[in-house]
Amino acid sequence: MYIGSDYYPEHWPRERWREDARLMQAAGLNLVRMAEFAWDRMEPEEGSFDFSWLDEAIQILAEHGIKTVLGTPTATPPAWLMHKHPEIYLVNREGRRASFGSRRHYCPTIEVYHSYTRKIVRKLAEHYASNENVIGYQVDNEFGGSRTRGRCYCNSCHRAFQQWLEAKYRTLSRLNESWGTAFWSQTYSAWEQIPLPWPNEAPANPSLELDYYRFISDAWIKYQNLQVEILRNVSPGKFVTHNLMGLFPSIDYRKLGEPLDFVAWDNYPRFSQHLDPAAVAMAHDLTRSLKNRPFWVMEQQSGPAGQNVMGTAPSPGELRLWTLQSIAHGADSIVYFRWRTCRWGAEQYWHGILPHDGKPGHRYAEIKRAAQDMAKLKHLMCSAYPAQVAVMRSYDVLWAFEAQPTSADLDYDQELKSYYRALHSLNVNIDVITPEAEYDKYKVIVAPSLYLTNDDIVQRLEKFVAAGGTLLLSFRSGVKDWENVVHEETLPAHLAGLVGASIADYTSTGRFESPNAPAQLAEVEFVHPELTSYRGTASVWCDILNLESAEALARYHGNFFNGTPAITLNKHGNGSVIYVGTSLNDVAIRELSKWILRTQGLQAPLGTPTGVEIIERRYNEKPVLFVLNHNSERATVSIPTAARDILTDQRYNDELLLDPFDVAVLELV
Amino acid sequence: MYIGSDYYPEHWPRERWREDARLMQAAGLNLVRMAEFAWDRMEPEEGSFDFSWLDEAIQILAEHGIKTVLGTPTATPPAWLMHKHPEIYLVNREGRRASFGSRRHYCPTIEVYHSYTRKIVRKLAEHYASNENVIGYQVDNEFGGSRTRGRCYCNSCHRAFQQWLEAKYRTLSRLNESWGTAFWSQTYSAWEQIPLPWPNEAPANPSLELDYYRFISDAWIKYQNLQVEILRNVSPGKFVTHNLMGLFPSIDYRKLGEPLDFVAWDNYPRFSQHLDPAAVAMAHDLTRSLKNRPFWVMEQQSGPAGQNVMGTAPSPGELRLWTLQSIAHGADSIVYFRWRTCRWGAEQYWHGILPHDGKPGHRYAEIKRAAQDMAKLKHLMCSAYPAQVAVMRSYDVLWAFEAQPTSADLDYDQELKSYYRALHSLNVNIDVITPEAEYDKYKVIVAPSLYLTNDDIVQRLEKFVAAGGTLLLSFRSGVKDWENVVHEETLPAHLAGLVGASIADYTSTGRFESPNAPAQLAEVEFVHPELTSYRGTASVWCDILNLESAEALARYHGNFFNGTPAITLNKHGNGSVIYVGTSLNDVAIRELSKWILRTQGLQAPLGTPTGVEIIERRYNEKPVLFVLNHNSERATVSIPTAARDILTDQRYNDELLLDPFDVAVLELV
Amino acid sequence: MYIGSDYYPEHWPRERWREDARLMQAAGLNLVRMAEFAWDRMEPEEGSFDFSWLDEAIQILAEHGIKTVLGTPTATPPAWLMHKHPEIYLVNREGRRASFGSRRHYCPTIEVYHSYTRKIVRKLAEHYASNENVIGYQVDNEFGGSRTRGRCYCNSCHRAFQQWLEAKYRTLSRLNESWGTAFWSQTYSAWEQIPLPWPNEAPANPSLELDYYRFISDAWIKYQNLQVEILRNVSPGKFVTHNLMGLFPSIDYRKLGEPLDFVAWDNYPRFSQHLDPAAVAMAHDLTRSLKNRPFWVMEQQSGPAGQNVMGTAPSPGELRLWTLQSIAHGADSIVYFRWRTCRWGAEQYWHGILPHDGKPGHRYAEIKRAAQDMAKLKHLMCSAYPAQVAVMRSYDVLWAFEAQPTSADLDYDQELKSYYRALHSLNVNIDVITPEAEYDKYKVIVAPSLYLTNDDIVQRLEKFVAAGGTLLLSFRSGVKDWENVVHEETLPAHLAGLVGASIADYTSTGRFESPNAPAQLAEVEFVHPELTSYRGTASVWCDILNLESAEALARYHGNFFNGTPAITLNKHGNGSVIYVGTSLNDVAIRELSKWILRTQGLQAPLGTPTGVEIIERRYNEKPVLFVLNHNSERATVSIPTAARDILTDQRYNDELLLDPFDVAVLELV
Repeated sequence: MYIGSDYYPEHWPRERWREDARLMQAAGLNLVRMAEFAWDRMEPEEGSFDFSWLDEAIQILAEHGIKTVLGTPTATPPAWLMHKHPEIYLVNREGRRASFGSRRHYCPTIEVYHSYTRKIVRKLAEHYASNENVIGYQVDNEFGGSRTRGRCYCNSCHRAFQQWLEAKYRTLSRLNESWGTAFWSQTYSAWEQIPLPWPNEAPANPSLELDYYRFISDAWIKYQNLQVEILRNVSPGKFVTHNLMGLFPSIDYRKLGEPLDFVAWDNYPRFSQHLDPAAVAMAHDLTRSLKNRPFWVMEQQSGPAGQNVMGTAPSPGELRLWTLQSIAHGADSIVYFRWRTCRWGAEQYWHGILPHDGKPGHRYAEIKRAAQDMAKLKHLMCSAYPAQVAVMRSYDVLWAFEAQPTSADLDYDQELKSYYRALHSLNVNIDVITPEAEYDKYKVIVAPSLYLTNDDIVQRLEKFVAAGGTLLLSFRSGVKDWENVVHEETLPAHLAGLVGASIADYTSTGRFESPNAPAQLAEVEFVHPELTSYRGTASVWCDILNLESAEALARYHGNFFNGTPAITLNKHGNGSVIYVGTSLNDVAIRELSKWILRTQGLQAPLGTPTGVEIIERRYNEKPVLFVLNHNSERATVSIPTAARDILTDQRYNDELLLDPFDVAVLELV
Repeated sequence: MYIGSDYYPEHWPRERWREDARLMQAAGLNLVRMAEFAWDRMEPEEGSFDFSWLDEAIQILAEHGIKTVLGTPTATPPAWLMHKHPEIYLVNREGRRASFGSRRHYCPTIEVYHSYTRKIVRKLAEHYASNENVIGYQVDNEFGGSRTRGRCYCNSCHRAFQQWLEAKYRTLSRLNESWGTAFWSQTYSAWEQIPLPWPNEAPANPSLELDYYRFISDAWIKYQNLQVEILRNVSPGKFVTHNLMGLFPSIDYRKLGEPLDFVAWDNYPRFSQHLDPAAVAMAHDLTRSLKNRPFWVMEQQSGPAGQNVMGTAPSPGELRLWTLQSIAHGADSIVYFRWRTCRWGAEQYWHGILPHDGKPGHRYAEIKRAAQDMAKLKHLMCSAYPAQVAVMRSYDVLWAFEAQPTSADLDYDQELKSYYRALHSLNVNIDVITPEAEYDKYKVIVAPSLYLTNDDIVQRLEKFVAAGGTLLLSFRSGVKDWENVVHEETLPAHLAGLVGASIADYTSTGRFESPNAPAQLAEVEFVHPELTSYRGTASVWCDILNLESAEALARYHGNFFNGTPAITLNKHGNGSVIYVGTSLNDVAIRELSKWILRTQGLQAPLGTPTGVEIIERRYNEKPVLFVLNHNSERATVSIPTAARDILTDQRYNDELLLDPFDVAVLELV
Repeated sequence: MYIGSDYYPEHWPRERWREDARLMQAAGLNLVRMAEFAWDRMEPEEGSFDFSWLDEAIQILAEHGIKTVLGTPTATPPAWLMHKHPEIYLVNREGRRASFGSRRHYCPTIEVYHSYTRKIVRKLAEHYASNENVIGYQVDNEFGGSRTRGRCYCNSCHRAFQQWLEAKYRTLSRLNESWGTAFWSQTYSAWEQIPLPWPNEAPANPSLELDYYRFISDAWIKYQNLQVEILRNVSPGKFVTHNLMGLFPSIDYRKLGEPLDFVAWDNYPRFSQHLDPAAVAMAHDLTRSLKNRPFWVMEQQSGPAGQNVMGTAPSPGELRLWTLQSIAHGADSIVYFRWRTCRWGAEQYWHGILPHDGKPGHRYAEIKRAAQDMAKLKHLMCSAYPAQVAVMRSYDVLWAFEAQPTSADLDYDQELKSYYRALHSLNVNIDVITPEAEYDKYKVIVAPSLYLTNDDIVQRLEKFVAAGGTLLLSFRSGVKDWENVVHEETLPAHLAGLVGASIADYTSTGRFESPNAPAQLAEVEFVHPELTSYRGTASVWCDILNLESAEALARYHGNFFNGTPAITLNKHGNGSVIYVGTSLNDVAIRELSKWILRTQGLQAPLGTPTGVEIIERRYNEKPVLFVLNHNSERATVSIPTAARDILTDQRYNDELLLDPFDVAVLELV
């Protein structure tokens, strides 16, 4: 277990370093991440390397009991390099080449940059291979974290894309057939004819577009792995990781995470996920589920955050709350971004633990308290994370919908969040998995809008259901094959056996069409006796269903499909499949989720008022409950048995009273 | 009379073709359009032509009684051609060159593409000249139907524009004078100095901009005609047409239609004209009026439509309703787009008669019924279309307003639609004409915002009014000459004699200025005893009028021009001219239209409830009434005399009851 | 005192010139500005100059008692020049090079254009040096007045920027340190590595961005001065000016104005400042304060204005009202834009005194009346403008906030306008100064969000307060040094001594984050006994303050900083400093302003109803009051003593009744 901060000695005078180390130690910190943007300091001119300043910083920190994680500095190549090789700059989809003075402005595929990358990474790894204070490496920083989300359209990427396609399809006739290039006269007779999916006079072939998104994701993974290999070879015995960005959509994090010892992510609850603790929880669960093991938070918000425009300030208590939420969800190390707020450059308003003036204030005090709390939870860090419910999120589906949203209102991640939020509010532990994960450990898999399917996924889902699992699918599931082509079979095509119903017709909301469009498509009404009575709007899309073996859980009101089934339930083997033909609002999803959990006998350890999160961990086979109050008011939680709060050593009998943003970690006694 | 579908044998296995033909025949279809995107199949590599697949498809279809219209495939040049000649790609006004993998991405003027076009069109025409199953050709597909609307800014177009200008003006001094280049030091001393109207530091000269829009329209027409000439020479005896896009603004359809045997258009009521049957009716009327003869619907919506995002699904009954509406307005052949929904490519969600799975469903059944109905109406196809009211829409005015909207709220087509909608709701037949049309056959011409005038138009309008016609003009009429220069005379300049009033001042709404702008400029109140009492908002623009020979029909309330005339009436010869100084809302326009029709003694054959459309045709001098219920509820229509519904052979005496989306075609008996 | 119009003889036939001159004279005009867009007429081909047409126009006008100001024609280089040297075109931040057919499309730094500029300006100056009817020159026209606001990103500007930086910083190490290039590995080891601040993958270094904005402002000033020097040398004895654009943000008008005899500006109240007389007043006050002496309005709105889209028409009376408002605020000459509305080109709807038809109408009559009024006020033109209150607006701060708004809702000019508007509504005269101005003459300086400070400004503010002045500062004051780097000291850093409080923390509204963001941050409540009771929203930003020597004037309600000071008052020497920690609404600012004026014993000469503006001038030590009714209704103003209206010679005792848009100029008797 580490608790630390991201530290930039190169931003401050050497005279200050010892004071910083002293303050860190006094706050209970035992780790820094350093150097991930310091190529200009490491190699001030080509071929001339200088790690002395970093050695000194590592040494001073070590003397204060603080270990170091080193970033490879490739997110920000130095001015001399980019001036010499402007072809390295990424080209965006408007055809504009990036320029100097920013970050992540390089192309992932260009060989000359790979060559410079190899040199600096090797030098760094060689230099620190035997330094015991350096315990691990972070490769680069936040792949994809820039305006283009890492999608480069330069000539190098164009050629690399064509080669990637050749490796994938081997023959042009296979590619032409898989993509359906007969449409709009797009048959390719040479690999070099294949374009990038530039904005154009009309939309690109969606199969080409999906493959481009896959290629660019692979390109970043390949670029990472080039570094991972050097680090492992040259500097064995230290861990290698990368800092991900939660729900970031453009790189397949499952594949990216594979060669890493563990994954880390950068958690800014008040930056892009304002006051939405469920969205933060979902990102934690996604990150943990990638490798199904403890992860790091490599950047944990430590103050107001933003670049040219900053967000709201965390309220007192929130920094600690977010820290403990991270631990609850499976983080075993927390690194705050950043130690001291930078006085210059593009992130002057991305606030650190210390303000610009370098004086410890209320954020420092709060981090210190969080460190003390973490120390009390050390034994839980590797404790089990029991999740019997999984939400399925596919990168391939994300990209397929990016190419073709189909309905102007369809937002795949919003659909996923709606289901996640409902289940999370019901206080069950959740994994957020990709279709490639194992399904056997779950009782419930919620896979909304599983747009693409392949044989492997379908077979494993069938096995999962047959064995007694509950599978929830929703509109636009099973529509396409893995190359983004609509299946030939009647929808839901290969999922039809599971769903027990077929799709006779469908309609989107068509919001784009006209201001006269009706406010709603239709309504949904629950009709199953075990479901609470509910009637509300059907949004985004309506599938019009013919029941085969399934029965109706809900029916439509209104429009020409009035009275037809909107939600179906199909028994399959020992399990069941629920198919939701439309986009439901939060109330409906919550009711449906309750019923699903109930039918699977899944029970939350505690009920809570709104805004209080429960996460259950298992230590020595016994449940330990994190109770997190995300409200700015006090909250009261009823507890069934006596319990002890590990943080305060206080005991509770009936009821736990939590201050605003406070947390308890309960052992049931 | 043909009824058919757009068919893409190249998208499906040969084994399927015969089944498709069988299903088409069973549904009553007797025509397909094919091949307009199949250049890659016709010429898989340069100079190597293959029509055998198409021959086979034509043959199979013919065996099922189905004739073929062939598209020339130039909307989608193949990959090998574009890879060899990237200079063919269109350049948009942001300076971005298009790339492969889409459609309509070619420049209209570039000679190398003309040369390839000549070759493929000649080959196609030669091959099918003697094939009796091929009855005609469609040139290319939807000229202008892409993001740029066909406006190319490449070097070839730049040079062609300069040559077009030289041909038009002959001398630079004439051009300089016509455009007023003295403004902002823009005098040209060489043709090659003349720029394209790129987005720039400040607006371009509006005369240059208008001429560029004319040039690009002419460029497409020239490109079409290059093909028409080859088709006529090489493959005589077959018709030649092109599929237009209704109200599409960027190509002068009157000129485009001239060399064609008839025009066709592509009708998607639930794509861009959601639930606005009047807008569809207007597009039909525009298309018919271009050549004043029956037209085809070459693509008639057959299901939900859209590319990356699709619209709402047609309700049951709407496909048939739209078919019969097309017939009512003068279409004599209907081709549905498309036969079967494509499983790949950019239009996977542009639904055909058959779903992706190829199984006939409810859309197939509905098309079959529509075909049966059409058969009963065969005798009406060439029947007269009696219209005594015309709405005037000028391409030159469209483009002049595109260059200078003058008021931020001014939308020329919206103004036209407002007047069209009112007249259409009053159940009179309407022609939608350009200023170049004959005026003599009408009793009423409604020409809102006739911004540009020339001597020919003014003289013919004067003749029309003098002979007893009623002319409606509105604000911004007569402002400019044909080169987009404000007339020197007091407004409405050359129309002043007709209007009988002069414009002392005016104001726009100036919406762009500030959030503090007042909600309305002023109000309009009707003051003529024959007009129903009305008071409501004056929008967009207010002309402040001095009456000369005219009298006031309405006056303003509020603002500094309170009490001055807002609408005037001027007697001129045997006719009268109404001038509307502001933008009226639908209620006001409807009242005004009623009064105009009444004064001209024009009477609708039937009154109808909202949403029920009446179109009158004349067969053997007797009226036949199409009664179309666009409502999703039943509608009741009172009928004055006994009538027989040709479709059902049912007879009605007082009252006709129509189901949702149902249609009757009444012979009065 | 001049009253005239902008005149374009090159737009009209010579036959008309004499009629125009006659009409001008009859209206009382005695000046024209001409030729600022007539390079094509002056030099129709390279090296061949022709001023004969202009000589003739000047002569005809002179015969009608009308003097001429000549514009140098460099805003619109002719077609032959731009065709020969396309490298002159400006490049915008999207990388697009401008093209011909617009205006202001040239780069400010490119040497070849400087060379052509020198030639044409020298020729013009030589030709008119001895022409007595030419009384002065306007250099170019509205520097920065185009889409890019004059910000060029071409290679010439790139090199010039690097040279500008070298001249400023002398060594790269000084630049690297000043900018904090250690952040994101941006250390420069050669001047040519330094980029322009293109849009990029992530934000640029804000210090680089600020320096670029300074550089481009300097580039235009340098370009102006190149012309000024020639005009002064070749044509001595005539004034040189330039027409500014009020609150235009991208050029430092203080520096631009320095070498000019006086500044002029272009005043369009109904173009961009719709119905906001206070914003117009502020622009006047800014313009006057630049050189602290009378200025010209070189373009005064004379009708509806706009390019492709025009604004609302001025109501009758407004043209005269705006004229007299200009005079009241210190203009001593008024030139209307333009004489006659142009029939062609991009400004056909920028209306002149005469309509397109050239016939004098109601605007002509109103201008004539304004000219008569001006004649009566001649003696006041150089009268004193007594202002004891200053609002401070810094170009450097504008640019620093442009680089980093910090809060998504922060708008520096809106903050300034809020304070200006409140003070203006309290009927005190105001100067709008830059930080470089003298402070000694004021009793109150209002300097909201004085984001950047340097030693000179801080020292002079301290001196000002110590001597008894009242200084108002607000949130984000004193945050950064002059190179856009956050001060190392606790905020408000170098202003802390003045403020007497320190900033413990802060929060922005963070509007960008999420739709769930709370509607307001907190509320502000006045708590000082001398302040009227008030409670209302705290917007944009909240500083959380620790009082040191200061006391609280207001406190926050709500959020985690509930109860802490929101506004503080600190006594310092003989004066006091008010610090406002948040953005207040108009009511709060007005109350606070009232109290500030009261404590400084500043009294308005008159109280007025809303929309009636009072400006006080001093003639022979006695007050003269301009009373301007900006309302479209009558207004009644109580007057304390008897008074005479100079315009009408009418006398008033208790009460002045003003018609809509009417003006009185009162001598108190």
